[in-house]
Amino acid sequence: MAGNTFGTLFRVTTWGESHGTALGAVIDGCPPGIDLTPEVIQQELERRRPGKGGATSPRQEPDKVEIMSGIFQPDGAACPKTTGTPISLVIFNKDAHSKSYSDLQEIFRPGHGDFSYQAKYGIRDHRGGGRASARETAARVAAGAVAKQLLNKYNISVLAYTVALGGIRAEERDLAVINENSLFCPDSAAAVRMEERIAEVREQGDTLGGIVEIRATCPAGLGEPVFDKLDGELARALMSIGAVKGVEIGAGFRAAVMLGSENNDPLTPDGFRSNNAGGILAGVSSGQELIMRVAVKPIPSIRKEQQTVNLRNEQVTIRVGGRHDISAIPRIIPVCEAMVRLVLADQLLRQQAMRGLQTF
Amino acid sequence: MAGNTFGTLFRVTTWGESHGTALGAVIDGCPPGIDLTPEVIQQELERRRPGKGGATSPRQEPDKVEIMSGIFQPDGAACPKTTGTPISLVIFNKDAHSKSYSDLQEIFRPGHGDFSYQAKYGIRDHRGGGRASARETAARVAAGAVAKQLLNKYNISVLAYTVALGGIRAEERDLAVINENSLFCPDSAAAVRMEERIAEVREQGDTLGGIVEIRATCPAGLGEPVFDKLDGELARALMSIGAVKGVEIGAGFRAAVMLGSENNDPLTPDGFRSNNAGGILAGVSSGQELIMRVAVKPIPSIRKEQQTVNLRNEQVTIRVGGRHDISAIPRIIPVCEAMVRLVLADQLLRQQAMRGLQTF
Amino acid sequence: MAGNTFGTLFRVTTWGESHGTALGAVIDGCPPGIDLTPEVIQQELERRRPGKGGATSPRQEPDKVEIMSGIFQPDGAACPKTTGTPISLVIFNKDAHSKSYSDLQEIFRPGHGDFSYQAKYGIRDHRGGGRASARETAARVAAGAVAKQLLNKYNISVLAYTVALGGIRAEERDLAVINENSLFCPDSAAAVRMEERIAEVREQGDTLGGIVEIRATCPAGLGEPVFDKLDGELARALMSIGAVKGVEIGAGFRAAVMLGSENNDPLTPDGFRSNNAGGILAGVSSGQELIMRVAVKPIPSIRKEQQTVNLRNEQVTIRVGGRHDISAIPRIIPVCEAMVRLVLADQLLRQQAMRGLQTF
Amino acid sequence: MAGNTFGTLFRVTTWGESHGTALGAVIDGCPPGIDLTPEVIQQELERRRPGKGGATSPRQEPDKVEIMSGIFQPDGAACPKTTGTPISLVIFNKDAHSKSYSDLQEIFRPGHGDFSYQAKYGIRDHRGGGRASARETAARVAAGAVAKQLLNKYNISVLAYTVALGGIRAEERDLAVINENSLFCPDSAAAVRMEERIAEVREQGDTLGGIVEIRATCPAGLGEPVFDKLDGELARALMSIGAVKGVEIGAGFRAAVMLGSENNDPLTPDGFRSNNAGGILAGVSSGQELIMRVAVKPIPSIRKEQQTVNLRNEQVTIRVGGRHDISAIPRIIPVCEAMVRLVLADQLLRQQAMRGLQTF
Repeated sequence: MAGNTFGTLFRVTTWGESHGTALGAVIDGCPPGIDLTPEVIQQELERRRPGKGGATSPRQEPDKVEIMSGIFQPDGAACPKTTGTPISLVIFNKDAHSKSYSDLQEIFRPGHGDFSYQAKYGIRDHRGGGRASARETAARVAAGAVAKQLLNKYNISVLAYTVALGGIRAEERDLAVINENSLFCPDSAAAVRMEERIAEVREQGDTLGGIVEIRATCPAGLGEPVFDKLDGELARALMSIGAVKGVEIGAGFRAAVMLGSENNDPLTPDGFRSNNAGGILAGVSSGQELIMRVAVKPIPSIRKEQQTVNLRNEQVTIRVGGRHDISAIPRIIPVCEAMVRLVLADQLLRQQAMRGLQTF
Repeated sequence: MAGNTFGTLFRVTTWGESHGTALGAVIDGCPPGIDLTPEVIQQELERRRPGKGGATSPRQEPDKVEIMSGIFQPDGAACPKTTGTPISLVIFNKDAHSKSYSDLQEIFRPGHGDFSYQAKYGIRDHRGGGRASARETAARVAAGAVAKQLLNKYNISVLAYTVALGGIRAEERDLAVINENSLFCPDSAAAVRMEERIAEVREQGDTLGGIVEIRATCPAGLGEPVFDKLDGELARALMSIGAVKGVEIGAGFRAAVMLGSENNDPLTPDGFRSNNAGGILAGVSSGQELIMRVAVKPIPSIRKEQQTVNLRNEQVTIRVGGRHDISAIPRIIPVCEAMVRLVLADQLLRQQAMRGLQTF
Repeated sequence: MAGNTFGTLFRVTTWGESHGTALGAVIDGCPPGIDLTPEVIQQELERRRPGKGGATSPRQEPDKVEIMSGIFQPDGAACPKTTGTPISLVIFNKDAHSKSYSDLQEIFRPGHGDFSYQAKYGIRDHRGGGRASARETAARVAAGAVAKQLLNKYNISVLAYTVALGGIRAEERDLAVINENSLFCPDSAAAVRMEERIAEVREQGDTLGGIVEIRATCPAGLGEPVFDKLDGELARALMSIGAVKGVEIGAGFRAAVMLGSENNDPLTPDGFRSNNAGGILAGVSSGQELIMRVAVKPIPSIRKEQQTVNLRNEQVTIRVGGRHDISAIPRIIPVCEAMVRLVLADQLLRQQAMRGLQTF
Repeated sequence: MAGNTFGTLFRVTTWGESHGTALGAVIDGCPPGIDLTPEVIQQELERRRPGKGGATSPRQEPDKVEIMSGIFQPDGAACPKTTGTPISLVIFNKDAHSKSYSDLQEIFRPGHGDFSYQAKYGIRDHRGGGRASARETAARVAAGAVAKQLLNKYNISVLAYTVALGGIRAEERDLAVINENSLFCPDSAAAVRMEERIAEVREQGDTLGGIVEIRATCPAGLGEPVFDKLDGELARALMSIGAVKGVEIGAGFRAAVMLGSENNDPLTPDGFRSNNAGGILAGVSSGQELIMRVAVKPIPSIRKEQQTVNLRNEQVTIRVGGRHDISAIPRIIPVCEAMVRLVLADQLLRQQAMRGLQTF
């Protein structure tokens, strides 16, 4: 059973390979009557575009999205609206240089899915990583933009930013400055040092990892115990992004060294007095801000020489050329936001199915 | 849409409240012909029993499981076998002291699901936490024992153990000693200090968190990109356990400070030379050992006085009495194993649907 | 992938074999706050009890249901209410005479699932048909009673009755008389002749089929195109009952011989002028009464001698003894109602997820 | 929860409106290594093309399909093969005359989904019926062609043909002649009379219904009791086609008037002696040929004047112009085949998940 559909009620199916004709997403379950234009999707795709930060490669992907179905502009409406039927989004691949990958046809790149995909499927579109390419996340971002339009109606907003890169940590959480540096870092001074570190490592032909933090406003009552708890769904959504190797909610791994009396968030008539829970109690949102962090591994495509094997299990060495970023950060940031939005849109409809709108 | 079913092909639905008549699990999708007796399930339940470690409470739950359906002993067979029909497991609650919880009917215990469940459902079985009680995990362990019987046929084994508790870390990974101490810790010296720390904190009426590590043998090819990747499914499974606030795979959060050249696992004709990936590449198992860790928060039920509110949003103080453990470790260990087994059994069948048995 | 779960949001998983310890259902997704007692379920089970009509066998199944989880009676509430957590229903088997079936261990009864189950699973609980027994429908009726409690809140009611049996057709649709005869037939005169036909055929050791019609009130807007249309879901639900070999909606097979101008239901400001559509247009309910009919095959267990083979594919003859009904009618009637209720409860929540309550 | 995905393991999601930019299907779960070219899909689409029978309209839809993803031609392979990743099929709409529908914006056409869609979604793409148009079935046929490629590997074949039209029944089942007449009728003499009846009714501005029969070869063991039985899944699949109002398996409604001794199919060492069961026992295929029939209602778009209401619930009359067929037959025939193939492909993978390939 394949796994290219995300969500249960707000359901997104993505398709497409890195160097195929196109990639896309079909959203089934978006309620009718939501404003939707290509422009609002395009805006999110722009945030994922390369060249947005010092860590990114010079490849220029226009990534122009087309809405093939699911919207209709009634007479007198200011803009098209969703109709409750499936929304098909297509992004044609225009900048696909298959040739630069032909020498990788027989070699398993370390840290990539080449080896495991071959084991699983017995056949593999090797061009640019095929389906396993980070390019796949463009479809996620496009679908997330549709979820954003729905969440706006419920005043739910999601924001991701860089809190560590290449070993340098943001000490501040000044959200006002995250759009003032190319790494979307809430600590301007740290951002400067991160950029310096990137330049240094680029020189060496190596790559860097980091940590992204995500916050979201969220009404109380979302999450479906005992298996589809909100934290579980968020963990899955974020861990399904290629570069992510860890997810934590609220205090996260720090909770492992706290006492119960420190970790519990006391309640007062004015609300919670702390937020170690990250806005989730027993898998259900408490109405506090959701807080989560993801560990992003360094990009596996490096110019340095590496040891690996080929299809015939012979020892070979490889240097991965082509246009590659130094870090998945910052381009992973809109992807994290998109995945959190997809989870929240889905959980919102799930709660609405059970309770109607009265709890929000 | 409620969320009490786990898995897509090996599908487990659990039910039951802490102080109701019984709790149970229905497993739909277990292949026919697997040996299954109540004893093999009982054995796993025993590992989750209280009184197994210094961190646990004196409450004695017999937790006797009954298999209500789905097995049949053909003439001449040594033991009952699964028939491919749903396997219903029931554990009757025998030691339920509802009275000790009656004073909690109107109060939201900090760190528990009381507040969020009330917001979500508008009604709540407050006795012992109802459905949000850790007692719910008995059904998971029972179901996991059935998965174990299936996985045995594929030589897949899963092992969890304690690598940190109350700030004390296991430096060793001597798996031979984990059954020699009550905390299932692979570092005997650390285990002694952990027990001392527990005794100290019990005195203070407080509780402790820690970290559990889980390893599993796993054939290459399990995991369903791009949304049901093996790491994503494991993250969700583990994060759906009440006390877990973080999950990491392989190098995990440490990958955030590594260089690409350090983090990539080189391949040789004899296999991988390291395992920072934790056995998963691009969401698909590589055939290496799976390695993951979970952050376990301190148990929220503490004897120390805490500030909270009641149903009428009035400030009150609370001391949670009753029989409570000092840490979710070690009783969470068989639960972690069960969840990993449920994921692997499901992914195994998913791969088998697509490829038949030839890839294993 | 096994198939013992019905529904997507109002989700019912059944389990249990004819001669096992018990059978049951777990309902996940019932909204909280619905009144629910064992009595309202028992009432529906009574309607399915043998001895209710001339066509039924003398076997007395008490079929006493227990609610194991998912309800709670808050202080001051008149009766227990659903809590939004899974509702587990168990019916213990008390009248299971396994011995009368031991001679069937090796023989495939014609018209039964013996042969196909053996081919599918390779192992089979032969006692009373195991999972393939009509006894399985007791769990459906129990679950349907919970759906009924939910549907009552939306003024949705479902009614099934006999319109043909053994070749005798009901010409009248006098719903007032259906509880006045043992066959739930809306034509008293026809009911008498049906009973006579049953007596005749019982004498011959043979069995009879018939047709059941089901009507339901239903708000406009239920059904999920293009694959989960209301008529499609109803067809599947009804066809999943063992004895059903055909399903039609509205004019059904009669529509095949009508002209478009005859079959179309004209609209007027006061509503539709006819109901050939059976209340469903393009897979979505129109607000008219739902009307459907199912073809019920004669019960395959007959006392007459039949030709068949055994496990070694040797020719044998068989006479099926034991306690068997002459027709699945009337006991199938509450089962049909239950299945329609499960579909409507599910579709109701599905529509509520998308639109909230405003459309009803 | 929307319903545009069909199947559980071989999973098809369709999208697109009659007069939108395009329509398409995403197939997730097709095993890797299956030969797939646009040509094999195109071939099935051709069979659905208008102008194929006397009952069809002159509208010429080229319906050219493009495969956007999920296939790859390895060096040395004779043709592209599936890779196990999602297969995206797109058919651009080229012959969409939106203008001819602008007068229908405010009017509910009798027998169409206009009224029920408005009630459900509150917004509606009225052009050509939007999502509710029969044009949607082009995507089903395209997806069914992919299923056909998979089923070929298991020697499973599906064939549909006309057995009644406008009250004229085929008495013969001479499958050799079905491609010799434009109605795919296995009775050449009946086919002539059907064509005459069509000409007659076209003159009157009216339309006709009929009955389609479908046969399929099928290994024993497919179908998932107790809710996803093979007959139930087939019934849902076929009933989800717009024009279908009834489905029967094997003897179907005729079984209602048979005795048990007549209806049971005796077994002999050489196989079953009859096939009243239609190849399905207790919801599981027996290895016999699958036989089913669907009742097709007359097309609701008629030139005759009809009574209806508009959006403001005012009485109006309507004559539906445009290019319309006289009967959904024969164009519905490849759609029926496609839906049966989608069911069988899905059930095949479901069985393979549980048993591996050994049972086939």
